[in-house]
This record gives sequence, structure tokens and C-alpha cells, in this order.
Amino acid sequence: MEDSVSKKIVKFSNGSRTNVTDLIAAEAPMQLIVNGKPLSITMRTPGSDVELGAGFLWTERLIERQDDIISHNESDQNTVEFSTRVQPMVEFESKNFFTTSSCGVCGKSTVDEIMKSSPFSLHNSHEIHVQERVICSLPEKLRNHQSAFNQTGGIHGCALFDVDGNIFKFAEDVGRHNALDKLIGHYVLRGQLPLPSYILLLSGRISFELVQKSIMAGIKIVCGIGAPSDLAIDTAHENGQTLVGFLKKDSFNIYTHPKRIIE
Amino acid sequence: MEDSVSKKIVKFSNGSRTNVTDLIAAEAPMQLIVNGKPLSITMRTPGSDVELGAGFLWTERLIERQDDIISHNESDQNTVEFSTRVQPMVEFESKNFFTTSSCGVCGKSTVDEIMKSSPFSLHNSHEIHVQERVICSLPEKLRNHQSAFNQTGGIHGCALFDVDGNIFKFAEDVGRHNALDKLIGHYVLRGQLPLPSYILLLSGRISFELVQKSIMAGIKIVCGIGAPSDLAIDTAHENGQTLVGFLKKDSFNIYTHPKRIIE
Repeated sequence: MEDSVSKKIVKFSNGSRTNVTDLIAAEAPMQLIVNGKPLSITMRTPGSDVELGAGFLWTERLIERQDDIISHNESDQNTVEFSTRVQPMVEFESKNFFTTSSCGVCGKSTVDEIMKSSPFSLHNSHEIHVQERVICSLPEKLRNHQSAFNQTGGIHGCALFDVDGNIFKFAEDVGRHNALDKLIGHYVLRGQLPLPSYILLLSGRISFELVQKSIMAGIKIVCGIGAPSDLAIDTAHENGQTLVGFLKKDSFNIYTHPKRIIE
Repeated sequence: MEDSVSKKIVKFSNGSRTNVTDLIAAEAPMQLIVNGKPLSITMRTPGSDVELGAGFLWTERLIERQDDIISHNESDQNTVEFSTRVQPMVEFESKNFFTTSSCGVCGKSTVDEIMKSSPFSLHNSHEIHVQERVICSLPEKLRNHQSAFNQTGGIHGCALFDVDGNIFKFAEDVGRHNALDKLIGHYVLRGQLPLPSYILLLSGRISFELVQKSIMAGIKIVCGIGAPSDLAIDTAHENGQTLVGFLKKDSFNIYTHPKRIIE
């Protein structure tokens, strides 16, 4: 499937309208099946579906170990099936069912349950440092990789960089959480988590859930083009993660653990 | 609770850094309890919580009629309880449990189930028309109402206008879906749906779920500052809804049913 499609639209500009064909970001539901049982449906941009599923299983703590995934296949264009060692625990009785979207806390029945514990500590001895000028160079590098965004204007991107500003992995999706799950899932499939030596850049605002997912991948520095929420800041602070927002080519804000960013 | 909080941060600009206090958009979980049973938890900006709950019950089709809501109260700052005539149907056996955030399809077990049928047809005889110049005037009016956004840069807004461009209702939230649920919930609580005479403006991109929710409220014209997805366009088209995107002060794109927008 394509990550964008052409549509005929009416364009109004400077007092007149024209009929033009426009490129639109694709959005379609993907069903995730684990050991033969439907687990979830998510709206996503088609592509990297297996990574999306694997990243979801991981960041939602539905698998304990990266090698719990035995096999996977895409049974049709909108369905991904996984075989896992242990069936993901779904406690129907004790948890809630419905939830709004964008919540990031689906299936949790109390406020306390939304905080997941990560197997990776960010407070360990292997520390990293990155220069201010490198941080400032990241947005332009992200934009250069965001082909679907450049064409449609309707898609989120995220990317992983080393401390010298070299881009290592890129993902995009109509949902910012999906983009990050795709990126992390790429490493889950390869058994390469945690990622303590890399910097994560997000194209938009930084929500709690994005911080939570990045902590589950062991990422120590997270940057966003937009603003973080207060709970995102609190979560990063408590888990030892450096959080940067409003990142532009000559300025940014540091919200937590500033020592990792040097002159 | 406040919709924003102050945080001490490090600001980097033009080669130097300063410690400043910054205003941050608040994000906190809200638990929705219906007839004594926990139904969902959603991440939202505190405020208008009852509207959020009521809008959710409605747009997710958990109540059949607006007056199914008997009473409601905020038992603590992060919990809203509703009493409804009929317990919302939650079919644990036949539906899925977990889901990613931003999906808008929580609890649906097949792709077909994500399309909700609205009690309101947009193809009825009571038609509305709005002038191009009025459409172009809306973004500035929305910005003038978006106080939290102006302060934090981290929040979504939506607003309802009449065809003369007068603003009637405004809502905002860290989650775009929550903002729309708050807006629609306001009218659910008053038994005032559908809203066929109004124009909805969204501050960001237009996802499928936002179109779905607006159709559930009987809104005939939806405008967004950002880009729609293809499924958003298809859903608007099939349901007779006019969809406008990339709205600026002198230009916009019309994606579906352009006849309602006149010179």
C-alpha cells in the first residue's frame, strides 16, 4: 500500500478556485492478531506494519522479552499476525474496556496503572553528551527525510540520531505514536534495545505517551519541534531522561536533565 | 485544576542559555465512571470534564439518546461519574481490549466496525451556505479564543461558528479528539444536537476520527488549519459533509461537497 494517494480537490486562492489533484496522507486501520487472537486495531499510515506491531507489543508491555516474538506475517494489507511465546496478558475482568483515542492509557483501570515500568534504567553509568550545535542541526535533517510530510503536510515523523548528528533510523505516520512504535519496533525485531547512545527527534508536540514509549526503549535524550506537556516533563524528569522542546535551528528549550547537552 | 502550569526550564537562544520559568500545557488522566463502573481513562487537559465525558458517551455511541444521561458529578478532580438510563454496552467477549492511542477505534474487533452510523443525516433538506470570505475569517477568530495555545504552544482548539462567522462555542485540549468531545458534549448535555447550521473549525490536521465525531453531531461543514487524511475525506464524502483543509486567511482547499461554500 502507498503512504499517500491522489485526490481531486477544489483549491481556493486569492479570490478564485481551481480543481486540482492533491496528494493526501493515507490512513487505514490495521488489525494486530497475536497467536490467533485479535488484540487491537489501530489507525495508521500503511507501511512498516510489522515494525508497528512489534513496537506496540513492546512499548505496551505485552511481551516481556524482545525474543518473545517467534514469527510474524502480513496476512493481508491491513492485518499483521504475530506468534509470541506467551500470550499477551489481557485481563478482561479487572480492566476497563472503552477509552478515548489519543489517551495512551487504553485498558488501564486506575490512574496509577498508566505509568509503565521500563526494563531499562536511564540512570546507568554509560552516559552520553551532545553539543548544542548538533541538537540545532537535527530538525533540518529530519525534514530532509520526511518525504510524505513534504508532499502532504499531514504526517508525523521521528528519527534517531547519534551524538554527532548522523541519522540512523526514520519513521513516519499519521499518528505520532505509531511513528514512534514503528521506529522502536524496528529495533525490537532485531533484539537491539535499549538505545542509550541515541537522540530521538519528534516532529510535533511531546505528549506523555511519547516520553513513556521512548523510556521503554531506553532512550536518554528526546527532542521535539513542539511543546511538551507537563506530565511528559514530569515523566522524563523522574526517569532520568533529557527532554528538549521548541527545537529550532538556533534555539531550543531544555526541560529536564540538562547536563547531557554541552556547549 | 489549571489548564497550564509554570515550570523552570533552561532556554537556549543565539548561543547562550538562561534559566526561565515557562508556562506548560497541563495533561492529566481523567477516569470516566458510568453507573458505578469504570468505563475509560483518557489523557486530557483539566477543565470541561463533564462535557468531555458526555461527548465521549455520545460520539462513541455508548448512549442512544441525549437524555439517557440522568445525572453527573465530579467526584474528584480527575474523576467524572455519570448515571445513565441504560448501562453502556461493553461486549468483553466479542471485542478487542488493547489498542494504540490515537486510533479512534478502541474496542472494535473488525475493520467494518469502525464506521459508526449517525442518527443524523447530512443529506436533509435544511441546507446551509457560507461565503468564502467568511471561511477565511475563521482562523483568526479561533486564535483569538485560544488562550492556552497562545501561552503554551501545546494545545489543540476547535470552535463552532454560524454562517456569518460569529463564534458560538470553543473548546481546547492537549488531545484534538478531547477538544471536539468537549465541544460536542456541551450540546449533548443540553439536548441540542444535531448542529446542522454551524461550521466546525479544527486547529490542526483532520483525522478520520474527528470527521466521524463531527458527523455524529450532525455538523455539515468542517474546516481544518491542517491537512485531512484520505479516510477523513472518504468518510466526509460518503456522509455528505463539506470538508475544508489548509485554511489560511486568503486560501483553503475544499475536499468534499463544495456547493455549500459560495462566492
